[in-house]
Amino acid sequence: MTEFELIARYFSRPKVAAIVGNGDDCAVIAPSPGNAFAVTTDTLVEGRHFLPTIDPYKLGRRAVHVNLSDLAAMGAQPRYALLSLTLPQINEAWIAKLSEGLWSALDQFDVELIGGNTTRGPLAIALTAMGELPPGEALLRSGAKADDELWVSGPLGDAGWALYCMIGEIKGEASAAQIAKYECPEARVALGIALRGVATSCIDISDGLLSEAAHLADASRVSINIDFAAIPTNLSEQLASPEHAAKARHCLLSTGDAYELLFTAPVAQHAVVSRLLRAYGLDGACIGRVTDSDSAARVRVLDAYSRPMDIEIKGWDHFA
Amino acid sequence: MTEFELIARYFSRPKVAAIVGNGDDCAVIAPSPGNAFAVTTDTLVEGRHFLPTIDPYKLGRRAVHVNLSDLAAMGAQPRYALLSLTLPQINEAWIAKLSEGLWSALDQFDVELIGGNTTRGPLAIALTAMGELPPGEALLRSGAKADDELWVSGPLGDAGWALYCMIGEIKGEASAAQIAKYECPEARVALGIALRGVATSCIDISDGLLSEAAHLADASRVSINIDFAAIPTNLSEQLASPEHAAKARHCLLSTGDAYELLFTAPVAQHAVVSRLLRAYGLDGACIGRVTDSDSAARVRVLDAYSRPMDIEIKGWDHFA
Repeated sequence: MTEFELIARYFSRPKVAAIVGNGDDCAVIAPSPGNAFAVTTDTLVEGRHFLPTIDPYKLGRRAVHVNLSDLAAMGAQPRYALLSLTLPQINEAWIAKLSEGLWSALDQFDVELIGGNTTRGPLAIALTAMGELPPGEALLRSGAKADDELWVSGPLGDAGWALYCMIGEIKGEASAAQIAKYECPEARVALGIALRGVATSCIDISDGLLSEAAHLADASRVSINIDFAAIPTNLSEQLASPEHAAKARHCLLSTGDAYELLFTAPVAQHAVVSRLLRAYGLDGACIGRVTDSDSAARVRVLDAYSRPMDIEIKGWDHFA
Repeated sequence: MTEFELIARYFSRPKVAAIVGNGDDCAVIAPSPGNAFAVTTDTLVEGRHFLPTIDPYKLGRRAVHVNLSDLAAMGAQPRYALLSLTLPQINEAWIAKLSEGLWSALDQFDVELIGGNTTRGPLAIALTAMGELPPGEALLRSGAKADDELWVSGPLGDAGWALYCMIGEIKGEASAAQIAKYECPEARVALGIALRGVATSCIDISDGLLSEAAHLADASRVSINIDFAAIPTNLSEQLASPEHAAKARHCLLSTGDAYELLFTAPVAQHAVVSRLLRAYGLDGACIGRVTDSDSAARVRVLDAYSRPMDIEIKGWDHFA
């Protein structure tokens, strides 16, 4: 099978909203009147972002959700995607499954695949995603204000726990639900759009709660207090076990792959945010409070007695 | 150096035209009134698209030109780019040079870098480029009409010849100019924009003259006759040498990396196209003619006596 046949068979469909779709030198697209495009790109590299044993269907799905999670964090409506696929060889059964997973996720959000390329090399999937939004309503990282509440859209720690168990870093058991949380993240697109005009700042948790909170604090020039006990999690048992407590805490605060939204909103919007989380079936929670910028700490985690816990803020660094 | 420091030091600048620039979950951009975005993405993988010995400055420059060449082929004005960089390790001197080359090319076309990501893995550079154009004026592959002339924007064969000499596939000499043509392609952006309303179809030659001509013929449902002797080239000496003739002909017709524009225009535009090529200092030429669709051959190369030459049409296939 040639490169062109591969693209034609597995990665092409007739255009829908694009002015020029797949198959020319470029796609041509325009946002609807009054809207702008939010654009993001992410590369998933084998051995870094996914294990070599990953089911290709889940990999295709994951590549889409990881990118759409960035659109969700801006409050954008996903519209278009471009795919750059680097493959060591053509294994048609594997590619067919990858493409099924990819399309299932694109279809879930009515996203049109408008271009891309395939090339030979070490396995990697780069996706560029574009969404629409009224430009003044974008959810930036920089809008958090003192006294705003800090929210997270769902339980944290499951994906990190599952990954650590899978690679043997933790000698413990990951439930099927935890493994699914790692392998099949769910971009919080509907919530992101609903948060326009409600949230004052927003980011998605790809690298870890504390480092993402630090990004919000830095961009907004504020400090953030997180109430440890308020963080929603399915790791309560592990957190209570002497053997697993330290690693479970690490998963909760510092491992990535959660793809939940972390956002701030005025206290006056508390009921609105609670209602939105319920409406979208999300087990999110208010987990902290924004304060005026505090030179001592950008992000502080407080224990049940409101005492700062001694925790290093460190997210995932690909070169650490 | 952390991933964030690396991005901040080498790949960030304050935003210019973007509504939201680098540093948030997404960039936010909108085309000027009446315009749409042309979007393209390309990945350069070490060992496939460039030799491991490549000067990182040239690699950075090349990644930009290769992508902008696709915008040029649509007649779009380059505006924005996103960079996905996969690096085996952080070698700061190497990255500094890569970033210099990248910025030199972005600055040449006033392109704003609005996002991207870095990750650890086998060396690869993926760029997504976005340009603007009035959507009705996009230069598609599908507009060629019978009797149109076929043009190329510059001499062909140099880049292929240089690469073959460098990898020892040809036992010959490549001149400095030929090596430069391979290492430092020049996206024909100004010409592409000037061809709006003049050319009836257009594509850039990334894979080889014959296969690109076949794409135009397929998309336009026409056939194309190419006059071999009319193809501009610096390989005349090699074409005349018994030792090198066959490989030189292959370089001229079938090797990629030229990044010249291949386009069709009505005969009535002949003088206009000639003037444009001169105006931009390009040694392009009219190299053939479009005919009605001919089931016998999509693309035919004719010798000096207008007899079809026996040549297989085959472009670069990453999986062949």
